[in-house]
Amino acid sequence: MAEFERVAVIGAGGFLGTNLARFLASRIRDVRCYGRRRAFPEALHGLGWVTGELADAHLAEAVAGCDIVIHLASTSTPATADRDIVADAEANVMGSLRLMEHCVAGRVGRLVFLSSGGTIYGIPTAIPTPESAPTDPITAYGAAKLAIEKYLEIFHRRHGLDYRILRVANVYGPYQTAEKGQGVVAAFLARALAGRPLKIWGDGHVVRDYVFVSDVIDAIWATLQYEGESRVFNIGGGVGYSLLQVIAAIDALFGRQIERCFLDSRPVDVPTSILDCSLAQSQLAWRSQTSFEDGLAMTLEWMRRQSVGDG
Amino acid sequence: MAEFERVAVIGAGGFLGTNLARFLASRIRDVRCYGRRRAFPEALHGLGWVTGELADAHLAEAVAGCDIVIHLASTSTPATADRDIVADAEANVMGSLRLMEHCVAGRVGRLVFLSSGGTIYGIPTAIPTPESAPTDPITAYGAAKLAIEKYLEIFHRRHGLDYRILRVANVYGPYQTAEKGQGVVAAFLARALAGRPLKIWGDGHVVRDYVFVSDVIDAIWATLQYEGESRVFNIGGGVGYSLLQVIAAIDALFGRQIERCFLDSRPVDVPTSILDCSLAQSQLAWRSQTSFEDGLAMTLEWMRRQSVGDG
Repeated sequence: MAEFERVAVIGAGGFLGTNLARFLASRIRDVRCYGRRRAFPEALHGLGWVTGELADAHLAEAVAGCDIVIHLASTSTPATADRDIVADAEANVMGSLRLMEHCVAGRVGRLVFLSSGGTIYGIPTAIPTPESAPTDPITAYGAAKLAIEKYLEIFHRRHGLDYRILRVANVYGPYQTAEKGQGVVAAFLARALAGRPLKIWGDGHVVRDYVFVSDVIDAIWATLQYEGESRVFNIGGGVGYSLLQVIAAIDALFGRQIERCFLDSRPVDVPTSILDCSLAQSQLAWRSQTSFEDGLAMTLEWMRRQSVGDG
Repeated sequence: MAEFERVAVIGAGGFLGTNLARFLASRIRDVRCYGRRRAFPEALHGLGWVTGELADAHLAEAVAGCDIVIHLASTSTPATADRDIVADAEANVMGSLRLMEHCVAGRVGRLVFLSSGGTIYGIPTAIPTPESAPTDPITAYGAAKLAIEKYLEIFHRRHGLDYRILRVANVYGPYQTAEKGQGVVAAFLARALAGRPLKIWGDGHVVRDYVFVSDVIDAIWATLQYEGESRVFNIGGGVGYSLLQVIAAIDALFGRQIERCFLDSRPVDVPTSILDCSLAQSQLAWRSQTSFEDGLAMTLEWMRRQSVGDG
C-alpha cells in the first residue's frame, strides 16, 4: 500500500504520460494530469485534466499539495531540440526550474524526473553505461536534461526538495505515435502496417537500448516508494539492438521481409547506447521484464486495434 | 604576434574584466568592452565601452565580426545565486545562450568562457581536481556555469562555434573589491587596512586555491592563441591555502596580528578546492607564476594607492 494519495503527472498527455496516468488511476485516489495536449483523450477518460505549458502560472495549482509530482514534459525530441537551442532551453530548462519552484512552494513531497538515458551521456565511454559515467551530451535535448538534473540537486540542497531521476532508454509500446519523430519502433510498425518502406537513417548499425513502456511504468512505481539514498537510475532493457536487428524482429513478426530504404545518418545519433541498469536492480528491485520480441508483438497488437477503431 | 584584431570582453567592468581589458588594450587594435557597469571607469579610460546586460539586444552588435569574444559576465556570486535560482538561471544561463547565438550570427571566431574551478566540481572526489573529475555543483552558481559549458559544446556541434573554457580558481588582485561578497583576499585586506576585524565563515579550515589576477590574464592570452584540441582548462595556483593560512600571510604582511572573528559556516562552501592545472601547463605552456605572498603584497600595495586617491 502506497503512502501517498495525491500525484500530479506533468506531461500526462504524451506517450509515457498516457500509460502512466492510466496505471496510477487504478492505484491512487487523486491523480492530476497536466500537459499541453492529450494524444489519446479517450485513454484518459475520467481522469482530471488541466491543459497547460510548463511556463503557465496555473502549473503551481496543479502541483500544490501533491505528495508526488512526476515530470515527463518536454516540448522537443533529440531530433528537434537543436533547431532552436535557446528556445528549447527556455521552454524545457527554465520551465522545469519553474516547476521545481512550484513544488517547493506547494510543499510537494517528491519530484520524479524522467531524464534521457540515450542522450545524457553523449558518446558513451563505457558500454553498458552506468549512472556514474561522464555526461557530455551532443544534442541540445541531452544538455537540457542534464541541466535539469543538476538543478534538481541545487533545489534539494537549497530548499529540501526531494527528487529522483530516471534516465530512461528508448521506450516503445502502446500509445506511442510516430508523429513526433521520436520512437523508431512506432514509426517502423506504423509504416509496415501501412505497407510503406521503413526509413533507416544511416547504415542501420546504430545500436539502442529498447525498453517496453510497462517496464518503465513499473520502474516509476518502484521509485515512488523507494526510500534509499540513490537519486539517479538508468532504466533500460539492458540489451542493445541495432536498427537492422529491430527490422529483422519486425520482419519475423510480419512473417515477411518489410521493404526498407536507407537515408543519410543524423548528427544527433550516438553510435551505441546501452544502459547499465544494475543500480535499479539492486536499489529498486527492478529489471526489465519484457523481451523485445514480446514488447514488439504487444505494440503491434495495440496498433492493429487502433487502426480498426477499437482503441 | 596575434592573428586577431578585434576582441570583445563581455563583463569588462568587473574585477577580472578591468584587468583583462587593460591588458588587451596594449596588444589588440580593437578591444570592445561591454558590461553592466564599470567598477573603475578611470581604469578603462580611452577604451570603447557599451553598457548592457546579457539579455540586451545590442549585445549582438557588440560581438558581431569579432575574432574573439571573452565572456566573463555574471550577475551573481556563489553566495548570492542560490537566493533566486530561477532568476539566476534566466540571467546567466539563458543570457549566455543568447550570447552564443549572437556569436554564431556575428561569425565570431572563438568564444572564451570564464567558468568556475571552485564551484563546478562540487565537493571534489580528487584533490587536486583535474578537468575530467565529476561535475556535481552544490550551488546554483556552479550549476549555471556547468550548464553554460555543456551548451557551448552543443553550439559547437550544431553551429561550428569554436570555444574554450577556463575553470578559474579563486582570483585575487588589483581591482577586486569586497563589495560583491566574493573575494576573501580583497575583503580581508580592506578590513585590515580599515582596522576592522576579519570575518571568518566557519572554523577557518576551508581550503581554497588562490591565483593572482595577472596569472589568469596570462592564461586567457595563451588561450586566445591556442590551436590544440583541448577545450577545458583548470586555471589555479595549484596550492591550497586555508583561511587561517591566508590570515597568517596577511598578519606577516602587516607585521602584526590582525583581529579576527568567527561566524557560522556558509552552506555554499565546499571544504577544499585545489585545481590540478597540469593540462594548462602541457597545452597552454601556462602555469601560475606569482607566489601567494607576492600577490598579496601587490594587492595590498594597489589598495593603499587607491585609498590615497592615486588609482
